[in-house]
Parts: sequence; structure tokens; C-alpha cells
Amino acid sequence: MKTIIGRELPEYIDGYGEVTPFQGAFKEVGIKNRVAVTLTSVTPSDPKVLDNLEQAFDKLNMKDGMTISFHHHLRNGDHVLNMVLEGLAKRGIKDLTVAASSIFPTHEPLVEHIKNGVVTGLITNYLSGPVAEAVSKGKLKRPAIMMTHGGRARAIESGDLHIDVAFLAAPTADSYGNMNGVYGNAACGTLGYAVSDAEYADKTVAITDNLVPFPACPIQVSQVFVDYVIEVDSIGDPAGIVSGTTKMTKDAVALIIAKRAADVIKASGLVKEGMSFQTGAGGTSLAVAAELKEIMRREGVVGSFASGGITRPLVEMLEEGLFKTLFDVQCFDLEAIDSFRNNATHQAMSASMYGNPHTKGAVVNCLDIMILGATEIDTEFNVNVTTGSNGVIMGGSGGHSDTAAGAKLSIVVTNLMKSRLPIIMDRVTTITTPGESIDVVVTERGIAVNPRRVDLIEKLRRTNLPLVTIEALKTMAEKMTGIPKGVQTLEKIVAVVEYRDGSVIDVVRQIGF
Amino acid sequence: MKTIIGRELPEYIDGYGEVTPFQGAFKEVGIKNRVAVTLTSVTPSDPKVLDNLEQAFDKLNMKDGMTISFHHHLRNGDHVLNMVLEGLAKRGIKDLTVAASSIFPTHEPLVEHIKNGVVTGLITNYLSGPVAEAVSKGKLKRPAIMMTHGGRARAIESGDLHIDVAFLAAPTADSYGNMNGVYGNAACGTLGYAVSDAEYADKTVAITDNLVPFPACPIQVSQVFVDYVIEVDSIGDPAGIVSGTTKMTKDAVALIIAKRAADVIKASGLVKEGMSFQTGAGGTSLAVAAELKEIMRREGVVGSFASGGITRPLVEMLEEGLFKTLFDVQCFDLEAIDSFRNNATHQAMSASMYGNPHTKGAVVNCLDIMILGATEIDTEFNVNVTTGSNGVIMGGSGGHSDTAAGAKLSIVVTNLMKSRLPIIMDRVTTITTPGESIDVVVTERGIAVNPRRVDLIEKLRRTNLPLVTIEALKTMAEKMTGIPKGVQTLEKIVAVVEYRDGSVIDVVRQIGF
Repeated sequence: MKTIIGRELPEYIDGYGEVTPFQGAFKEVGIKNRVAVTLTSVTPSDPKVLDNLEQAFDKLNMKDGMTISFHHHLRNGDHVLNMVLEGLAKRGIKDLTVAASSIFPTHEPLVEHIKNGVVTGLITNYLSGPVAEAVSKGKLKRPAIMMTHGGRARAIESGDLHIDVAFLAAPTADSYGNMNGVYGNAACGTLGYAVSDAEYADKTVAITDNLVPFPACPIQVSQVFVDYVIEVDSIGDPAGIVSGTTKMTKDAVALIIAKRAADVIKASGLVKEGMSFQTGAGGTSLAVAAELKEIMRREGVVGSFASGGITRPLVEMLEEGLFKTLFDVQCFDLEAIDSFRNNATHQAMSASMYGNPHTKGAVVNCLDIMILGATEIDTEFNVNVTTGSNGVIMGGSGGHSDTAAGAKLSIVVTNLMKSRLPIIMDRVTTITTPGESIDVVVTERGIAVNPRRVDLIEKLRRTNLPLVTIEALKTMAEKMTGIPKGVQTLEKIVAVVEYRDGSVIDVVRQIGF
Repeated sequence: MKTIIGRELPEYIDGYGEVTPFQGAFKEVGIKNRVAVTLTSVTPSDPKVLDNLEQAFDKLNMKDGMTISFHHHLRNGDHVLNMVLEGLAKRGIKDLTVAASSIFPTHEPLVEHIKNGVVTGLITNYLSGPVAEAVSKGKLKRPAIMMTHGGRARAIESGDLHIDVAFLAAPTADSYGNMNGVYGNAACGTLGYAVSDAEYADKTVAITDNLVPFPACPIQVSQVFVDYVIEVDSIGDPAGIVSGTTKMTKDAVALIIAKRAADVIKASGLVKEGMSFQTGAGGTSLAVAAELKEIMRREGVVGSFASGGITRPLVEMLEEGLFKTLFDVQCFDLEAIDSFRNNATHQAMSASMYGNPHTKGAVVNCLDIMILGATEIDTEFNVNVTTGSNGVIMGGSGGHSDTAAGAKLSIVVTNLMKSRLPIIMDRVTTITTPGESIDVVVTERGIAVNPRRVDLIEKLRRTNLPLVTIEALKTMAEKMTGIPKGVQTLEKIVAVVEYRDGSVIDVVRQIGF
């Protein structure tokens, strides 16, 4: 069985089930369902605050085989996932599925729980560090399921991913379960990745280190979705919450790439009143934002919105009036948190509103320009951001596939080589985002436009930009690096890569070292 | 078959179905469901803006027997309900059920649609004016269903009330369906009664007279729930949107009642840090707010929240720091709209978050003090706000039963007589709110405490307040007015009064004149 891109997939994967192969970015649309939800109604005399996690585990009747969920707004500073799993492991609970929107190096204790059978399933949108290595080495009993940010919201809302209990880190919560992320020691800003979990889990628990008097305004997750509230010493380390990766690059090559990407944007004709823009938090991506800012200033253009994980450069553009609104699913730095707390035009969005393809229109659908990264790109423009060239999982889609699908212009910015390995090749190790969603690849040695975008090729031909074919870029890279050996993997499937619509776009197999 | 209050009900009502008799305010709780929703996913290439209502009717495949819904934030200034029904009547559509959160005198054209069989069902929380009279006279084919504000949200979310198409008046909307009520000619503030409709209807249409560039921030109803957007000349008359009833009374008797109600609140011990308060928009109710304000100032107490339909007096208390937050389901005046637009501590809530008993805890559950009105009260403290003493429908619960059930202290403030009729009697014409939810009745001639509230009676006995039994109040009134004749009604049931949990608390029968 093959995807439309030609990847061979088994029809059935043990521990995953039937496989629906990817058939195109917008093939799985039309009539869709949001699943029914069962809940226990709360009367005025029912208190929600419990003494501790142990008491919650009792009330929740935690047992083997449950699916428990977590959001990743505290990123590499998160204490909640480890705290909950330690408690459940002590109780002798086994065979849990952890549905965490992302997993970071700080979640290393999860490796032991995987080895001990406490955790046998993992569903996540981004996976890095020791847990990623353990999964790649085949330690997890069932294949991990790698989703996209929008795809995870879709899976939860459609019932494909049923959550028994959502354990939600709450930087601030009140005694009735209202939560926000803008106050408290572990303030993280918006709580976009927690919303579907709260709304659709059988049971939802707010875990906070800042229990405040009712009501915890501004309310980002409402009391009507929360069963219990627990106060703990610390939900997270602020130093790990704010990502260290959101600084703009000073690398000369990266700056050239950024400049060229901005030139492509300009030539595309999309720099105009009401434009919208998103970029990742990588150094080169942020440099594109800086270049775009200059263009918008020069041309006196006011955009409608910038979106995504929000960083200081986008906040500055909002404050300068270059964008009227920020749509924020996740704050990447303190400046973004401050802005969200204080500026009404800095709006939160849930992961579903951000990228769920099975709503009546996610924000990514409204996006003009998207700047993306890549670990590998093939000559069909398919992108890998899931595994390294050694086959080890080191990331995942996050919002990559969601935004690429939605945006009018999706630009991958990348050096032609990284660590002496070529970025462009005949076959990427893992397909994360399909080539049909990628319009342009900008490198320091040339710009390749997807042949599907005849309109864009024509526009760019009228400029001095160094247009080349993607095959030419591949050849340039290979001349310097040699042709890389493909990764040798074992047969065992360690991860299933789901496209945002729930179809399977690729699988990751066990590494042999 | 009888309710727990003793009202006789048929087991089955034609045009309504099986009757579940009311068995107590918190008898119908526990495991509950939110229903599954079917939707059509929207891709980036699908536009949402249609030319006009006619085009929307085509796209929506409007047909006989559908249930269509409306919110009442434009109150007596609303143009949308009439506009939609006129269009559907012209198409020859019949047998519609109109699920409007409230119906006002401006909806008089609905009477013709009822007579012509265009509309044969009506589901609403409040019904006044010509439509109420027509229903009382038996003109509607099926019995109207009178719900509470929280009960309507419950019915929609549980699937008891399935909406085919929600036609939502949007004071401001963008081309992708994001809506807010704070800008535009027909600005009405929050949109709390529109939220469940948007989320659960098969199809949702935004009808606006202020179509703005994307995104229409602040977003109160999200694009992810909206199928189509239509621009029209006018959705409403601002003069009718702001209620004329929100002025404080200058009537000497009403001021005495208000003062005594405030004394009861004080004596109850609930005036303390973190207290919460709600009042209706009637003159006496607002006078209680003014009295309470003085007490809070004097005692240096800061409350957590005031809630409900929000009016200037509550805005002033927020601005003065007497309450930390306002929870606003509906703005009653321009000051409330301004405050909601400009003050982050003035928070919107949906009708579901406000009063739906089948969530994990509505805001009414957190309410300390509730000030209520009444048309009639019986000696069991049951309250009628649905029909006049002549048996004609002139209102409905709105949030009456929701708040009475949730609040720690529910106080009815009323003159002992109105229009030469006694307010307190052996048997109210219609039971809207059960006596078990009413703690105190305050009149100019004495204060009656529900015997269930032994604790409160003890506290009030320590004061100089004129405590009497409710029977004594009844006798006082009857001495002046004589014993009123009960209303003579016909057999036909013209309206079914549902309690917030969906059980039937009473029925309204056809009037004989």
C-alpha cells in the first residue's frame, strides 16, 4: 500500500491498527464529526480542590491502560508530566498511553517508565531528547504516534484520540478550575494546546503552583471543563519555559538566506494591506521577519495578523502597527507573555482554531506567508522535520504541516548543508510535510520553486533572484558533501507519522545502532 | 402525574412528547453528555461571504420542519429574526421551530407566521408582547417550550434541542465569521446567548451590518464555528438594544424594600472578602445594588465578582474596586458595553458557563447573593415570572431559576401588591422557580424567610428586621385586596415550562378570553 507520494506502508501496524495512507493535503475533507463528551455535572455543593495528586488518583480511579494527556506550554521547564507519571508508577499502574502535545529533554524520566511498562504508548506532535532516542531504539511497546498541532486537536475533537484524564499544568488557577497562563511563577502566556484536552477528556485536572481567589481572570480554560484542582509546590522551571532558541541569527549565511526569502515574499505580490505572516522561532526564520519588517515599513503596509508561536520580533511589529493582530497559540519568550497579558489585540487561539483541518476554517487557512525550517528536503519538495539523517527522531511536525497546507506561500529557509550533510536529496528519511504544500526552498546557493507554482515562477523570473531547480540544488550540495548513504533501519516500526487529517504519511523504523 | 411540588402534569403532551416531572433542583445531576456535532470542514479555498440571505437559504437547503435559532442580544431592537422569517415565509417554508433565546414586542411579525403555519414551534427563555399573547391564545400549533438561560444551553449541548441553522446577529463580523458585539452600529456588548448555538447548530450563519477586515477582534464567537457570513443594511435599532428598564427606582416603597434586602444580606454574614452578587435590571433590584455598595464601602469589603446581565451600577462597583471581576452574559446598557470593550476584568461568559447545570460547574454555582423579582409567590415560596395573574404569558425564567438554584442566598424583592393584586397567594398561576431555591421574600410590610433556612432565620432574629411568616404576608395582602379569583383557563396546553435540567415544572394553558 502506498501514499500518494509513493511511500510504502503496511495496511496494518501492530499496536496502531489499520493504516489510511495519505492521499493529498485536502482529500480528507467534507462532512466531519466532533465527538460526544461524557462528563459529571458539578453542583454548588461539590468542591473541586483536592489535597494532592494521590487523592486525585483515587477520585479518578486511575487504572492500567488509560490515556492521559499533557500540554507542553512549560516546554523544557515542565514538572507536571514527570510528577504525574512518578505518582502513577508508584501505584503500580501499567500500560498507559501518554498523549503530550510535545516531549522535551526534561522528560527523561519517561524513559524508565517506558522500559518498565508503565508507559506503552506515546502520542505527540514533537519529540526530542532521551525519550526520542528511546523510541527510536524500539523501547516503547507500541509505535509512537506523531501528530501535527492541528491534527492532535482534530484527533481529540473527532474522538480518534480519546483522553481518559487530562493533567493540565496551570500557571494560575482558582478553586473552581479557571486557568490562565499569564500570572504565576511558571507563567507561559497562552494555553492554546490545553484547550481541546480540557474540553474533550473524560476528566480534567488543573495542577497549579499559584492557586488564587476565584475567579482567575483572564480565564483561558474555563471552570466548566475542569473536575479537580490540585496545588503543588512547582509546576515548572521558568528558565526552561522560555525557549533559548528564539534569538535572531548573526550568522552571515543565514542572513543572506533571510534576505532572499524576503525578496521572494516581495516578488510574490503578497506584501500588501491586510497581509498575514507566520514564522518559526529559529534564527533564520526570525531574520526573515526582520527583513519583512523593513519592507513593510518602506512600503507603508499594515498587515492583518501574524500568528503561531509568538516571539519578540512579532510583538514589536504589532506594537509598531505593522500588524493589527497577533494570533497566539503559544508564547515563546517573556516579551510575548507580557504582550499577551497587556495587549487586547494579542489574541489567544486554541490548537484547534490554529490548525485543525476539520473545523469550519482554522487560522492557518487565512495565512498568506509561512516561513518554515527543514532537516531534509527531497526533489519533490517533501520535507522531513521528524528524524535526523541518522534516522533518530529529533522533532516532529508541530505546526509545520498545518501552516504549510494553509498558507498561500510556504517558504522553507535552509542552508544547503548542515554538519557536512546535504539538506536536499532524492529521498528524505521521513516525510513530515508533503511537497504539494511547499512552494519555495530558499538556500544560500539558490532558490528552487515548486514546479506546481507556475504563477510564482513567472513572477520570480522577472527579478534578479537566483532561481534554480531543486535538482540543481541537490547536485550542488552533493558535489561538496558526496552522496549520503541512506539510513539503515531495522524492520520494526517505532513511530507512525500522521498527517493532520489522520491519514498516515510515513513511518519511522527502529535504528540499528 | 405530579411534580415534587405537587403540580399535576399529563404524562404526554401532544407536540411536546413525554413529560419528565420536576423532582427537585438537583435531582437530575451526575453523568451527562454533550452531544456529537456534525460539520462541514472548510478549506483555504472555500469563501464564506455570501451575497444575501436568499443565497444563504439556497446553500443551507432550507426546508419545512427545520429548527432555526436566534440570540436576543439586540432585544427589542432586533431586526434579524423578522428578516430571516420574512425571507423563509416568502419561500413558502412551513412548520419551522423558532428557538430564540428571547422574544420581544418587536417580533410582532412572528404572529402572522404563526397564524400562517410558517412557524409551528417556539422555544424560548423569555416571551413578551404580541407573540406572547398569540401563544397564550392558543395560536401556535405546538406548545411553546419555555426554558431557562442555563437550561437552553443545556438543551442545545445535550442534543435535546437540535438546531438546524443558527442565524446569529453579529454587530461586527469579518469575512471568515469571527464575531464581536463591541463595535458597530448595533453594538450590544457580550454575545453570551449565541455561543452554544454557534457551537452546536448544524450550520451557523453570521448576519452583520459591520463587515470588517479579518480578524474581527476581540473574537467572541470564533470562525471555527461559522459556515457563512452575510452583510445586510441593519441588524438592529440601537434605541431598542439598550433596555429602558435599567434605571434605578425613585419610588419610596421600592427604596424601603431595597434597604431591607440589603439589611438581610448584611445579617446573613455573606458581606465579606470574596463575596459575589447578582441582581436583575429592575428598579428595586438596582436599588439593592446601591445599598450593598454603601455597605461594602463602609466595611471595606472587596468582592470577587458580580454577574449576569450587566448594568451601569455594577460597572461602577467594578471601577471603584468593590468587585474584582464582572461575569457578563449580556450587557444591558451602554456603560456595560463600554466597560466590556475596555476593561479586561469585565469578562464575557456564555449562557452555558453562566447557568448550564450539566457542566462541571456554572458561574451561578459560585454565586453568594442573588436578588430576584417575582410576579407571584406562593406560600411554599414558588415563584411565577412566566405569566401574569390573568394567565397571559408576559416573561419567563431567563436566568431566574438558574441563579436561584446556584446562589447561597436568593432574595425576592417585591411590593406586597401590584395593580391592586396581591403578590403572595396560595397557588401561583405558573411555577417558574421552585420554592426550594428561594430563601427570602422582602416586601415593604415584612420579610419572610423560607422555613428550610433555619440558619438564616436564627441570624435574622438577632436583628430588628420585621420577620413574618409568608402566610402572614399573604393575609396582609388579602386584607387589602381581597382574595383574588384564580384564572379560568381552557384545557389546551399552550406552553411547557421546563426547569433548567429539562424536567417539566409546570404548563401554561390557553386563556379563555
